[in-house]
Amino acid sequence: MSMEELIEVALGKAPADLQLHGEFLNLYVEELQEAYIAVKGGRIAYVGSKPLKAGETLEVEGVILPAYIDGHLHIESSLLTPSRFAEAVIPRGTGCVVIDPHEIANVLGVEGVKFMVEDAGRTPLKVYVMAPSCVPATDLETSGAELGVEELQELRRLPEVIGLGEMMNYPGVLNLDGAVISKLRAFSDAVIDGHAPGLRGAELSAYLSTGIGSDHECISLEEAYEKLSKGMWIMIREGSASKNLKALAPLARRGYRHLMLVSDDIHADDILSQGHMDRCLRRAVEEGIDPIEAVRMATLNPAEYFGLRHLGSISPGRSADLVVVNNLREFEASLVILNGEIAAREGRYLAGIRGSLPEAAERRTMNMPPAKPEQVEIRYEGDEARVRVIGIIEDQIYTESLIHTLSVEGGVVKPDVENDVLKVCVFERHRGSGRIGRGFVKGFGLKSGAIASTVAHDSHNLIAVGVEDGDICKAANRLRELNGGLIVVESGEVKAELPLPVAGLMSTLSAGEVAERVEHLHREAERLGCRLRSPFMKLSFLALPVIPKLRITDYGLIDVENFQIVSLFA
Amino acid sequence: MSMEELIEVALGKAPADLQLHGEFLNLYVEELQEAYIAVKGGRIAYVGSKPLKAGETLEVEGVILPAYIDGHLHIESSLLTPSRFAEAVIPRGTGCVVIDPHEIANVLGVEGVKFMVEDAGRTPLKVYVMAPSCVPATDLETSGAELGVEELQELRRLPEVIGLGEMMNYPGVLNLDGAVISKLRAFSDAVIDGHAPGLRGAELSAYLSTGIGSDHECISLEEAYEKLSKGMWIMIREGSASKNLKALAPLARRGYRHLMLVSDDIHADDILSQGHMDRCLRRAVEEGIDPIEAVRMATLNPAEYFGLRHLGSISPGRSADLVVVNNLREFEASLVILNGEIAAREGRYLAGIRGSLPEAAERRTMNMPPAKPEQVEIRYEGDEARVRVIGIIEDQIYTESLIHTLSVEGGVVKPDVENDVLKVCVFERHRGSGRIGRGFVKGFGLKSGAIASTVAHDSHNLIAVGVEDGDICKAANRLRELNGGLIVVESGEVKAELPLPVAGLMSTLSAGEVAERVEHLHREAERLGCRLRSPFMKLSFLALPVIPKLRITDYGLIDVENFQIVSLFA
Repeated sequence: MSMEELIEVALGKAPADLQLHGEFLNLYVEELQEAYIAVKGGRIAYVGSKPLKAGETLEVEGVILPAYIDGHLHIESSLLTPSRFAEAVIPRGTGCVVIDPHEIANVLGVEGVKFMVEDAGRTPLKVYVMAPSCVPATDLETSGAELGVEELQELRRLPEVIGLGEMMNYPGVLNLDGAVISKLRAFSDAVIDGHAPGLRGAELSAYLSTGIGSDHECISLEEAYEKLSKGMWIMIREGSASKNLKALAPLARRGYRHLMLVSDDIHADDILSQGHMDRCLRRAVEEGIDPIEAVRMATLNPAEYFGLRHLGSISPGRSADLVVVNNLREFEASLVILNGEIAAREGRYLAGIRGSLPEAAERRTMNMPPAKPEQVEIRYEGDEARVRVIGIIEDQIYTESLIHTLSVEGGVVKPDVENDVLKVCVFERHRGSGRIGRGFVKGFGLKSGAIASTVAHDSHNLIAVGVEDGDICKAANRLRELNGGLIVVESGEVKAELPLPVAGLMSTLSAGEVAERVEHLHREAERLGCRLRSPFMKLSFLALPVIPKLRITDYGLIDVENFQIVSLFA
Repeated sequence: MSMEELIEVALGKAPADLQLHGEFLNLYVEELQEAYIAVKGGRIAYVGSKPLKAGETLEVEGVILPAYIDGHLHIESSLLTPSRFAEAVIPRGTGCVVIDPHEIANVLGVEGVKFMVEDAGRTPLKVYVMAPSCVPATDLETSGAELGVEELQELRRLPEVIGLGEMMNYPGVLNLDGAVISKLRAFSDAVIDGHAPGLRGAELSAYLSTGIGSDHECISLEEAYEKLSKGMWIMIREGSASKNLKALAPLARRGYRHLMLVSDDIHADDILSQGHMDRCLRRAVEEGIDPIEAVRMATLNPAEYFGLRHLGSISPGRSADLVVVNNLREFEASLVILNGEIAAREGRYLAGIRGSLPEAAERRTMNMPPAKPEQVEIRYEGDEARVRVIGIIEDQIYTESLIHTLSVEGGVVKPDVENDVLKVCVFERHRGSGRIGRGFVKGFGLKSGAIASTVAHDSHNLIAVGVEDGDICKAANRLRELNGGLIVVESGEVKAELPLPVAGLMSTLSAGEVAERVEHLHREAERLGCRLRSPFMKLSFLALPVIPKLRITDYGLIDVENFQIVSLFA
């Protein structure tokens, strides 16, 4: 794009590439206006009442909006590569996502972050990166990579990296952890996202005094109000896992300005069935938020928070990223234009995926020896063993710490299928240590077989839950072959699987294919007795040693409240 | 300031330097709140309902506001050095100014810009710089320096330089002037201020397509509305010279967000008698703007527009720049805290001016030979001469192009004092060329003597108006000795003078002394017959060849509409 060309187009001295004529939402004066919008070289050259010369002029029905910006997102949660994610969300009107790629960073470090940018670059989706601040999340687990200050500074040199990602380690901030402070300091002149569920009062002030600027973890209005009033931008989250719009909508209804809509995590099937930011917008309007305000929360507000001056509104000089919707209630997108080119029409993605998968996608990340049943056995001297058991709860991310007495046969502690106490194992998969964390979990309901996943927050080791050690090992070994994935095994046979060859986190398939495979996995898990709505998501959070109470990593059981490894035997 | 200290203070583990207790304006939730505000090392560590440990706790009466930010200002117009300006405005509540130092840049170039920053740094006033984009303003005048792309890039490396200053050369933008475009391109990732009086429609789109983000030249509501709706931040100007608040206040009353209050130019006497941003705020509230909105327009809004994340609100992590006012109508400041330290109390400046004037202040900028009467004579063969005369109009910056017939005595064209047609001369003072532009002007009303100034936009050559050539030369030669200034001369005697030794633009005296001297100059000019309210300001604009119709530079008379030098003789 040359500046000269834009000027010449606006002055009518050269033809625009494309011109839209219709009603658009002017966010500055908060009204719908009829206008011609002329585009040249990917930018908006002109917005006004007179038509200009143009290669093509489209008469638009509906309302033209700026393409949406998701201000906080982990693409990896969709199980899709960025290019496949783009293919799925662009037809819904998304033009830009600000990602914190901490999942892949835990596996592949800087190289993983670069992969996300590079792969997204194969599509017109704009991707900006908040450099992951907490990789690994703790030292009670083994990750594939670490991002220290040096790595973060390396990342910062990438043009797409615009700030520091969600500072989840708020205890580290409050306790003046040297590494944490030095990361914050390294980004003190940039945007820094927060993540501080429940933090209030003096501790909140302390956390914010470091320059942290946003929070997406508010679940109550009171918490969000306090954070907003202390200067945080509140990202109202409405994703696949967490839905906070209902609780937080009053903030927007009261007219407060520092608000955004974000998805945080969104699954492939939800994108296909409900959408991405368009879904957030529909929900926002359902909750009584003024539609113009809602659109601003998904366009201009994130652009302003992140300092993306060229995005977020329909005005001369900005990127020509537009979406045409039927109305400001349903937000059904009929046309999406990104960088001045038609990217999707009537829900169909048209912009293609250029080139081939970046090399990092080929990296083998299953650096673990084959699993053998005798390695996952839990041996105990005596007839029965009193063990700690992770108790999972539907609809909660917290777990309970239970005590069960299990029988011991031939020196081996046995699961108690009748009482739903099953074996859970975490296989360290990054560094070839052969380390396996072993324990028991209650809540999956399997009567036979095993399920396993290489998506296991935040270090993404291989985690498996099952009745039989043989099936657990079969599942682990099959995922090892696949370079990662999700799997259901029964009696030594694979019943369903979704390969996730990219870092063990992402499929190379389309959203439709991924959704179908996941659905199949769910059905097979259900057939084995599992009654959880999202067994693999539950599984993926079992290894996250920052959410109370009991978790398991490759080091074994973790007492989260005391932040230490505890013995299986109580 | 260390991050660790802020955290410890907020957590109550270490004492704050200072703590305020009282009612403050929370701009995020738009209400007055009672709170303790604890400060450490210049930053706000804590805002909350509980008192913290602190070295000192102040119980505050009135309302605590963020210190004000003036988003567009030429300090030079005050005739004060930045440190003296700070001394005058800080007691009024100003904490930060975003300056475009194009006056001094026309004289001293990069060195002049650096002087502004350095001198302001002797006080707690925060100064950010928009690198001057149009130095010199035209090639029809001789300036002391030029800022090309290279100089601008050098400036950009200074931490205080945050963007490109007002792009006044909008014809250059629209005509694809190569130098203009390359300057815009050099700042394409930064804030760029606009200046485009009257620009509308397609031309406005063209101008904005380059990324220009603000305008402070709107005089009508319609113009401002159009610019706002095209994405510009509207800086509502209420300074000494231009007052646009009355016309533009409806924008704020309608709730539009991208608005600021700025002063652009403000004189020392106005600061002392009426204030700076406090005056803008009073005026805004008088015009029916909601007081909270008004404060936001002078604090958080400019901070957000310029990306100054650490300024503009009272919240943890931000700079402890606070002003206590009696109420949100009069905005009378009783206490000003900058960088966490008391800077002014009850209108008295307390923070001092550290160190001595930077060396650049000593630079001789009067590089001109002594003026001699025979050099300013206008010779003509004949008994009378038909000449072009600049016609000035009270309250207008525009001039008329008049024709008068003047008598010629001894081959020399004589002024017509009876009809108020006086001699005007521009002495090139930067490069020693000895060039003198000569002409006639109507409107000053002098019956004898001469007045002269080295403040003469934008190149700031020496300009003099007078009845007698001898007095004109006396005035010029005295200013040459003084290294610049303002002066009134009669019958070869200096009647009043204000030395402006810093670049011929700024005094080293205090605002009070400058105001007194200017008042004396005005009285003396009046005694000589001048009826203009601000004769020296009028004088300073006579040499600005970008405002119609007729101007004068060291090259002679300029026909602004045709942008060319024209003969004195019509």
